[in-house]
Amino acid sequence: MDHPAAGPEIDQLIKLLARLPGLGPRSARRAALHLLKKPDKLLAPLAAAMSEAAEKIVTCDNCGNIDTVNPCAICADPRRDASVICVVEEVGDLWALERAKAINARYHVLGGVLSPLDGIGPDDLNIARLIARVNTGEINEVLLALNATVEGQSTAHYITDRIENAGVKVSVLAHGVPVGGELDYLDDGTLAAAIRSRRPID
Amino acid sequence: MDHPAAGPEIDQLIKLLARLPGLGPRSARRAALHLLKKPDKLLAPLAAAMSEAAEKIVTCDNCGNIDTVNPCAICADPRRDASVICVVEEVGDLWALERAKAINARYHVLGGVLSPLDGIGPDDLNIARLIARVNTGEINEVLLALNATVEGQSTAHYITDRIENAGVKVSVLAHGVPVGGELDYLDDGTLAAAIRSRRPID
Repeated sequence: MDHPAAGPEIDQLIKLLARLPGLGPRSARRAALHLLKKPDKLLAPLAAAMSEAAEKIVTCDNCGNIDTVNPCAICADPRRDASVICVVEEVGDLWALERAKAINARYHVLGGVLSPLDGIGPDDLNIARLIARVNTGEINEVLLALNATVEGQSTAHYITDRIENAGVKVSVLAHGVPVGGELDYLDDGTLAAAIRSRRPID
Repeated sequence: MDHPAAGPEIDQLIKLLARLPGLGPRSARRAALHLLKKPDKLLAPLAAAMSEAAEKIVTCDNCGNIDTVNPCAICADPRRDASVICVVEEVGDLWALERAKAINARYHVLGGVLSPLDGIGPDDLNIARLIARVNTGEINEVLLALNATVEGQSTAHYITDRIENAGVKVSVLAHGVPVGGELDYLDDGTLAAAIRSRRPID
């Protein structure tokens, strides 16, 4: 059905592109055509970038981030506050916090959240290594920057239970009105949290 | 801004992915992360498929289709009706007609449409080669399967003018109600065309 009348190589390209998130069969065909129209300017450079990334990509043994060096550039950066660990679910969350320049700390990527229904327990996540890092005695604060979902919050509770005797401060992200957000479009839980956490005007 | 805190290789991968149609900066990051999570199962195969396609891709000298052989598989297929040329704007249109198994003829890909405002004239399109094919005397019919846009229709008129003395039948696609289409959602022009082209019930 997807056979584009242009040989098995192009067929295979479309099939693999369709496995990317955000691309279905139709947009994969469009993307393939776009690439094939510019074989030297786009297709070959993208192929090279992909094979280079595939060759060099490693998971940081310290924090679970992905990078081309191990330990990752963030763990190796002496300008980072090494006493604060910002715990996130996925590498994408780490990237988001880095783009926002939200915190100058080190990270710990769990690789998911606890989800008993999906059979994901503590041993399936990067939690043992987190506890080992906390127990080095070099950490003052663990910021649990997990998603505000049921799974994210129960994972935060589980980690808190495991490290509360280590003598480190454990914190979570504030709930409230997003910057630029309109009250009329916010859910009741966010509004209630924003009221509860109200603060004196600056 | 897009720097994902993970080295220039990954940065470059995201930048190139973001140039695909249908992917913006955010979805390019998601796609890159998805690929990087499966370096062996997805990233490396896609890199290989891309570099193979980039190496092998050629434009058919006869019809303008893209394929890994020249002339393309369709032009070389003896089971195709060689007396009918189906003229399309882009390779994507050819793929669509092939997926629909709509016609068992050969094709001719113009590579665009006439567009004086964009400075695209007859010499910028694959028209001279079409006229040469028509003038071989082996062609009975030229089906102009161009988009139902102003540019598509004026390109069809231009081609008709150029080949009307070659003694071949020139046809265009029928206008009408799309199969499965609901009248209430169709534009006036389509409805009027469907009425004008009404036919006795089978």
